[in-house]
Amino acid sequence: MTMDMMKGAMSSSGMPMKGMDPAMMQETMEALSACTQACIMCADADAGEGMGKCAGMCANCADVCDTMMRMLLRMNGWDMQVTMSMMQTTIMMCRACSAECMMHAEMSEHCRMCAMACDQAVMAMEKMMGSMSEAMPMA
Amino acid sequence: MTMDMMKGAMSSSGMPMKGMDPAMMQETMEALSACTQACIMCADADAGEGMGKCAGMCANCADVCDTMMRMLLRMNGWDMQVTMSMMQTTIMMCRACSAECMMHAEMSEHCRMCAMACDQAVMAMEKMMGSMSEAMPMA
Amino acid sequence: MTMDMMKGAMSSSGMPMKGMDPAMMQETMEALSACTQACIMCADADAGEGMGKCAGMCANCADVCDTMMRMLLRMNGWDMQVTMSMMQTTIMMCRACSAECMMHAEMSEHCRMCAMACDQAVMAMEKMMGSMSEAMPMA
Amino acid sequence: MTMDMMKGAMSSSGMPMKGMDPAMMQETMEALSACTQACIMCADADAGEGMGKCAGMCANCADVCDTMMRMLLRMNGWDMQVTMSMMQTTIMMCRACSAECMMHAEMSEHCRMCAMACDQAVMAMEKMMGSMSEAMPMA
Repeated sequence: MTMDMMKGAMSSSGMPMKGMDPAMMQETMEALSACTQACIMCADADAGEGMGKCAGMCANCADVCDTMMRMLLRMNGWDMQVTMSMMQTTIMMCRACSAECMMHAEMSEHCRMCAMACDQAVMAMEKMMGSMSEAMPMA
Repeated sequence: MTMDMMKGAMSSSGMPMKGMDPAMMQETMEALSACTQACIMCADADAGEGMGKCAGMCANCADVCDTMMRMLLRMNGWDMQVTMSMMQTTIMMCRACSAECMMHAEMSEHCRMCAMACDQAVMAMEKMMGSMSEAMPMA
Repeated sequence: MTMDMMKGAMSSSGMPMKGMDPAMMQETMEALSACTQACIMCADADAGEGMGKCAGMCANCADVCDTMMRMLLRMNGWDMQVTMSMMQTTIMMCRACSAECMMHAEMSEHCRMCAMACDQAVMAMEKMMGSMSEAMPMA
Repeated sequence: MTMDMMKGAMSSSGMPMKGMDPAMMQETMEALSACTQACIMCADADAGEGMGKCAGMCANCADVCDTMMRMLLRMNGWDMQVTMSMMQTTIMMCRACSAECMMHAEMSEHCRMCAMACDQAVMAMEKMMGSMSEAMPMA
C-alpha cells in the first residue's frame, strides 16, 4: 500500500525526482523500517545484558533510520541536497552500528540479526544514492 | 526477521506475556508500521491541499502508532497495564483518523488508503487486546 | 518562543480549546520535553549497568512523552477525546517509570533525577486534565 | 536538570568527549528542542494554509533535530564521526527550512518564528562543531 500511495504522490507532485524509481524507494523504506525495528529490539536486549555501547548505538541507529524513512515519505518536503546528506549520515550510522553489533554476534543472536538489518539498509541506500547522484544536475 | 528476533526475546525474557502469540504481535507491528507510513504520506499530501485538520490528525496518528510499535518491540520495558492503556489510545486515534480521512476519501486517494491502513491497525490491535485481557490475572 | 507561537495558533484556529490556558499548556509541554530528555539519558545510562527493565521503561516513557508533546503542539489536529486518552496513558506511563526508577534511586543518581522529571510531568498533566474535563461539554 | 544528568553521565563514562563543554552541549540541546517544537507548530499551521513545501520541510526538520538531540543525550552510544556527520546534516536541514520559512515570513508569523528557531539551532551547532573538530585527533 505504501508503494501505491507513493506512486500517486510522485506523479501528482511536480518534484525533482525524475531519476527515482518507486520500487527502489519502496525497497529502501522497507529496509529502513526493518532496520529501525531490529535496532530497537537489539537496544532493548543489550540493556538487560549490560552492553551499553551497543544499546546506545542501536538506539541512535533506530532514530536515524526512522527519520530517514520519514523524509523519504514526505514528497512535499523533498530537498535533494538535504536528502542526500541525511542518507550519507544514515549509511555511516548503519555501518557503525553493524560493526559494533558484529563484535558480539557470535554470542548474541539479536546482535547478529541487527547487523544484518543494518547491512541490508546500507545496500538499499547505496543503490538509491547512485540514482540520486545521476538525478542531480551536477553533484 | 523482526519475528525471529521477537521470538528469541520472548523466550529469553521472563516476562509476563504468556498469552501472547508471536505471530499476532508481528501482525500488529506490521499493521502499525504500515499505518505510520500511510499517515506520514497522507499528512504530507494534505498539507499541499490545505486540509489542515486531516494533516494534523494524520501526523498525530503516525506518532502514536510509531510509539505503540516501539513499546511492543521492547520486551524488557513491558508493562501490561501501560501497554493496554496505550493500545486503547492508539485504537481511538486510528478510529478518529480514519473517520476524518473517510470524509474526503472520494476525492482524495491518499485519504482513502490512509483510512484503510488505520482500519487494519485497529483490527490487529483489537485482536491483541483480546489476548492481553485474557492474559491479565483479572482485568 | 514556543508559547508565542502557540498563542498565535490558538487564536487563529477555531478550535474547541476554550478552557485551555496557554501558560498551562506551555508548562505541560516543557515538563514533557524535560521528561523525554531525562528518560533518554536514564535509559542510556541504565543499559551500561545492565538495568534492562528500567532502560526499557525509560525508553518507552521518552517516546510516549515525546508523542504527547507533539500532539499538544498540533492545534489543527486537536481532538479532545483522543488528547485526553493519550494524556491518561502518558500519566500512567510516567508513574510506572517513576516507580521503577525510584527502586534504585539511592544508588543511581540518574534514576533519581529521571523519577523527578516523571513526577513533574504527571503534576503538569493532572492540572491540564482538570481543565480539559471542565472544557468538555459533559465528560 | 538535563545538564546535571549530563555532567554525571559525562564524568562516569570513559567517552572521548574531552573537548566538550557541558554548558555548550546543553545550549545545543535546548536550541534543538526549541527548533523541533517550532517546526512541528509551523508544519501544523502551514497545512491549514496549503503551504505544502513549507509543511513538509518543517516536518522533516522537526524529526532531524529531534534525532540529533537524542544522539547527544546518549553518552554510551557516542561515536564522534557519526555525530559530526549528523550535525552537518542537521545544520543543512535547518538552513534549508529557515530559507523556505523566510520566503513567507512577512505574511506568516509562525514562519518568521520558525526561521528564527532554525537559525539559533544552526548557531549553537556551529559552535559545537568547532569544539568537536578540535577534539578529533586529526579531522
